Amino acid sequence: MDQNTDQLGSAIEAFKAVVGQPHVLSDDASLSRYALSTGPAGTRPAAVVRPEASEQVQRIVRIAGQYRVRLYPISRGYNFGYGDACAPTDGQVIVDLGRMDRIIEVNRELHYCVIGPGVKQGQLADYLAKNAPELVLDCTGAGRDASLVGNTLDRGFGHTPYGDHFLHTCGMKVVLADGTELNTGFGAFDGARSGRVYRYGVGPFLDGIFCQSNFGIVTEIGLWLMPRPEAFSAFFFSVDDEAQLEAIIDRLAPLRRSGLLRSAIHIANDLRVVSSKTQYPWDRAGGATPLPDALRKQLRREHGVGLWMGAGSIEGSRGLVKQIKRELKRALKPVRITFMDERRYALAQRLVGLLNRFGLARGLTGQLRALRPVLDLMQGTPTDEPLAGVRWRLRGNLDEAQLDPRLCGAGLMWASPVLPMTGHDARRVMQTIEPIFAAHGFECPITFTMINERAMIGITNVFFDRRDEDETARAAACYDQLVQSLIDAGYPPYRTGPGGFAKLHAPAEAFWRVAGRLKHALDPEQILSPGRYLP
Amino acid sequence: MDQNTDQLGSAIEAFKAVVGQPHVLSDDASLSRYALSTGPAGTRPAAVVRPEASEQVQRIVRIAGQYRVRLYPISRGYNFGYGDACAPTDGQVIVDLGRMDRIIEVNRELHYCVIGPGVKQGQLADYLAKNAPELVLDCTGAGRDASLVGNTLDRGFGHTPYGDHFLHTCGMKVVLADGTELNTGFGAFDGARSGRVYRYGVGPFLDGIFCQSNFGIVTEIGLWLMPRPEAFSAFFFSVDDEAQLEAIIDRLAPLRRSGLLRSAIHIANDLRVVSSKTQYPWDRAGGATPLPDALRKQLRREHGVGLWMGAGSIEGSRGLVKQIKRELKRALKPVRITFMDERRYALAQRLVGLLNRFGLARGLTGQLRALRPVLDLMQGTPTDEPLAGVRWRLRGNLDEAQLDPRLCGAGLMWASPVLPMTGHDARRVMQTIEPIFAAHGFECPITFTMINERAMIGITNVFFDRRDEDETARAAACYDQLVQSLIDAGYPPYRTGPGGFAKLHAPAEAFWRVAGRLKHALDPEQILSPGRYLP
Repeated sequence: MDQNTDQLGSAIEAFKAVVGQPHVLSDDASLSRYALSTGPAGTRPAAVVRPEASEQVQRIVRIAGQYRVRLYPISRGYNFGYGDACAPTDGQVIVDLGRMDRIIEVNRELHYCVIGPGVKQGQLADYLAKNAPELVLDCTGAGRDASLVGNTLDRGFGHTPYGDHFLHTCGMKVVLADGTELNTGFGAFDGARSGRVYRYGVGPFLDGIFCQSNFGIVTEIGLWLMPRPEAFSAFFFSVDDEAQLEAIIDRLAPLRRSGLLRSAIHIANDLRVVSSKTQYPWDRAGGATPLPDALRKQLRREHGVGLWMGAGSIEGSRGLVKQIKRELKRALKPVRITFMDERRYALAQRLVGLLNRFGLARGLTGQLRALRPVLDLMQGTPTDEPLAGVRWRLRGNLDEAQLDPRLCGAGLMWASPVLPMTGHDARRVMQTIEPIFAAHGFECPITFTMINERAMIGITNVFFDRRDEDETARAAACYDQLVQSLIDAGYPPYRTGPGGFAKLHAPAEAFWRVAGRLKHALDPEQILSPGRYLP
Repeated sequence: MDQNTDQLGSAIEAFKAVVGQPHVLSDDASLSRYALSTGPAGTRPAAVVRPEASEQVQRIVRIAGQYRVRLYPISRGYNFGYGDACAPTDGQVIVDLGRMDRIIEVNRELHYCVIGPGVKQGQLADYLAKNAPELVLDCTGAGRDASLVGNTLDRGFGHTPYGDHFLHTCGMKVVLADGTELNTGFGAFDGARSGRVYRYGVGPFLDGIFCQSNFGIVTEIGLWLMPRPEAFSAFFFSVDDEAQLEAIIDRLAPLRRSGLLRSAIHIANDLRVVSSKTQYPWDRAGGATPLPDALRKQLRREHGVGLWMGAGSIEGSRGLVKQIKRELKRALKPVRITFMDERRYALAQRLVGLLNRFGLARGLTGQLRALRPVLDLMQGTPTDEPLAGVRWRLRGNLDEAQLDPRLCGAGLMWASPVLPMTGHDARRVMQTIEPIFAAHGFECPITFTMINERAMIGITNVFFDRRDEDETARAAACYDQLVQSLIDAGYPPYRTGPGGFAKLHAPAEAFWRVAGRLKHALDPEQILSPGRYLP
């Protein structure tokens, strides 16, 4: 596709006629803002257009087609560590859907909502708390301002039994490159009553092709909400022996598969937990990286962190939760399980408060405070806390209030292999990645998440200081080698950013060729997000 | 596409070179056999070709492309009441995948299997019973010889918590019209270890487009198997007051949504149950149809059947099942729940046996016998019993051993609306369809199945005697009006047969146009199953 400045200029004028002048940005400051990234390098858009309705999106894509301008839709652009708001290449026009933030419907009888791509998870949580407190949303750790639709289309996941976000969508509205508006499932049928309660509709089930692709611009989704359970209990466990990781996974897997446990279960290593609580101890390490073993042990002790720590939740009637707790405890023996619910939390707070009067509970106060956002996430309340974790490798004093990782120099690249839910595979993943992190001077923070009954997603990442050129270069090299080695070892990622797209292609050529044929059918001129996932 | 006899002849010769002469059928008797249908009229294929491997399927589609021959793949052709083995139009070449009946893998660590389209549900159940008794398969009522892959691709459903079959697939192998072999999900990646444990892979999730479509020939799927629960209990309830249907649905829905109940739950009316137990009482009705009310009541009494009868199952640890039973009982009060498991069944059998010695338990023996296939289905053992139900409206003596409904003159057309899981919608569906059945001289047997946490599928059907020309014509008219009225009322079907395809198009034009573009991308010459679902 040829694109020249004249055509871009004409397109921008036409965009202004659609969305109004203030909602088309092409000034230097705005473009720089959208170019910010947590990766080694962001890309710079040619312009930004901010529609407020699906109908405007239709007109925008038609204009783009006419002037041969490439569009890169973002929901809110909070795709931190996976490309952020940046298109894979410079010069695309960002379609920022942030203004399409209407909560279109909350259905309290059938427990779902219909939302636009601009709806923030904090916004929906607040709305539900006020208007439908019996309904619970599944949130990610990406902060209160992250888009639910954006996360869902990238197949993100959270913490509750509704943790697999795409699995809990029901019906999409999609604008295709030629301006066609497609409603999927029974939403396609005028007057059908099951558009938000039955995903497949009749005929081919299309929703899946609009995830992790560039086939259309999703302007609305139905999302199932979980009825707030009568009872809730978080559970936590911690093991201090490296060999126990395998055992605990193999012990949890049957519980997940039998349906005893239904929430996503996260098992994080010490580095993941410590990095979320504090910054790299530059002074104590004498500037050395990666974190020396002795210091790592010390940090574990100081922060009350085990080598591997697990967390999940139990939801149901009071009787059911009680019974499940009993069985979980028995099944994981000798590993000790700690249960925590709101009643216990309040009690612990009171006890710690009392101890504090005697100056005895300083560590405990921090531990309790750290627990709060975890309990919140497990119960559908998003929090900005996890965002702070990305600052681990930054040097010097930080502005604690600045939560946007793009603005504090934090570098972040996720590598997220999918593996069978076996201890043996977890071990192999660790053996694959740990030497790579070490060789490049980075730590290996990782969380294994039991995302369904048979698979885990390993969420690991390179934290780096983007203000340090050498470290940034090493981070990029480290990430490259991580992703490639994981694919080679049989563990391709569940999701990736611009740095990973190209690596997916060679090992699955036939698949991408077919995906390319579908792309061509829906967007022959490659107007939408060229380079996103597809070759 | 032009198709003439010469080209067909050449194609047939070429097919023979691929699969061997005995596996290409074009003799009159064979074609007539494949043309058999439970619908008002079957269609006659031009030939039948029976490959035994995916690689042969690739060669077959290439030959079909070369000679411009249309192919209609069937797994085993047991799509009773939805078109059976018949293509939507005459003259297509049936690709019968029945020989591809290899159980390629059963994974006892991660609980899945990989199977070809020819694998029968009875075959897999037998295999598991012998080689992996800890694993349970979800079966439909379509009999032991029905294909699991075929049912899954039509998004059929069964009875256990794995009742939504498509939802429990993981990874497909698909042959496209040009002979491309596509592996979906992580199966696309050489050496990936998560192909059968994580459905989406990375990039667009394509599996959905190969269901209820004609985009490719699926030659292999991964299917998740349920670990056999430590404890199992069926539950049954029955209500005799028409108004109670709404109440019971509205009482069950929250239990399904809270996760207390996880199996598919079926609520059948008296006519569904009676028609499965006996034939239409032609003599007592004096030949009149539909079934007079007084006679209907009498049959209910004679067969110990309520107006609406529900059945579901509970799986889990012993403690969990006990707890769930307790809560279910409490939640449905005053409706009485009967629980049944293998221990209770054996006990009941002994008691009935004793009573029989005194000639006291004739009705009970039948009731107990009728329960057996239900308990079996709920525990993953397929049975041929439900097939007998289709003979309800046949006149005269029947060959009880003849289970293939196509061979005994039984007419059968399913209409299967999807509705939100509310009593109110169930009532509206009944109000829509009952007058239509009555006007055409048919009864309205129906089952409402809670297929997920928010929707039900109403499975109703026209039973008729295909040997009676007048009745067949009335059945066709009744079916037409049923499907159309359900769509008009907001309840399009979850699945349909040739008689229903055309009705789906007008109310969802935009959707089908997009589906058509995808079809064109994958099969521009319309070689595969023209007329199936897509316009």
